[in-house]
Amino acid sequence: MQSSKPAITILGIDPGSQITGVGVIEARGSELKHVYSESLKLPKGELAFRLKEIYSRLQVIIAETKPDVVSIEKVFLAKNPQSALVLGHARGAAVLAAVNNDIPVCEYSATEIKKTVVGRGRADKAQVQHMMRILLGLRVAPPEDAADALAAAVCYAHHCQLTQAIEKQTGSTIRGRSA
Amino acid sequence: MQSSKPAITILGIDPGSQITGVGVIEARGSELKHVYSESLKLPKGELAFRLKEIYSRLQVIIAETKPDVVSIEKVFLAKNPQSALVLGHARGAAVLAAVNNDIPVCEYSATEIKKTVVGRGRADKAQVQHMMRILLGLRVAPPEDAADALAAAVCYAHHCQLTQAIEKQTGSTIRGRSA
Repeated sequence: MQSSKPAITILGIDPGSQITGVGVIEARGSELKHVYSESLKLPKGELAFRLKEIYSRLQVIIAETKPDVVSIEKVFLAKNPQSALVLGHARGAAVLAAVNNDIPVCEYSATEIKKTVVGRGRADKAQVQHMMRILLGLRVAPPEDAADALAAAVCYAHHCQLTQAIEKQTGSTIRGRSA
Repeated sequence: MQSSKPAITILGIDPGSQITGVGVIEARGSELKHVYSESLKLPKGELAFRLKEIYSRLQVIIAETKPDVVSIEKVFLAKNPQSALVLGHARGAAVLAAVNNDIPVCEYSATEIKKTVVGRGRADKAQVQHMMRILLGLRVAPPEDAADALAAAVCYAHHCQLTQAIEKQTGSTIRGRSA
């Protein structure tokens, strides 16, 4: 029997200039369902074409899965300004794909995401992959970047569920946007 | 009388997360004509909406002026990774607006641009503004960021003219794309 709780579709993105992770889940209360995920390997060569690939692939995924919200990792503070700059381009392309479709963007730090899905902020990538397999009932663990993207989506679902629980208890609205 | 040389339209962009400079010129050999320029002040608040503004404003300018090429400054190496990251987002939005319209993107360092338009690589902003007024026959100097964007466009026009001159002398094609 389907739960009466409304479902929300969440698109998690783990942007990178070489590989961008994408993960879509459907959340109905605490029930999570894997909809789609991939580690999008970007073409070598000019950054401009890699940005185009990130943007256009996300446009297709957004059109097909119709997410209500995008959840994206806040960027680690790179020590190297050059890599921060390149990553900024990739992240900008991902954020643009969301806002150009009028989809709100939520950001969580890597620590928040790992704490939510693994229980501690310093979990390694294999643990995140493992937990995505368990939480989403997948037969095999998703690849690293796809798992990180799914984890960002799961983090949003978890925070959303917490918010709803508090709203229910207090009778007040915490966020303008209620899923 | 109009020159028989073909004209090219060049869109120069000086991306920034607070103000993005935009400058469109038409170049026919060494003749340069100012078509449009502005210093686009971005809304305060979330970066996502500023990226949307950069992208959508450039879409409009591209649709109206139909540039053959986009010329954009290579980014200075910020000492601070956080500002490099933010700038990367803005630059990514600008580059995407070009490639999503199938417009080739050329990059020049700030030093190359200043050398071309002022004669030395360490010119200050006021000199660039002054030279844009002179070179493009404007009654008043454009604002700083618009002037930097116009300077990037003028730099492309200059290199393009040099390339054409060499091609003419040698009878060979230096670039695949000949203006």
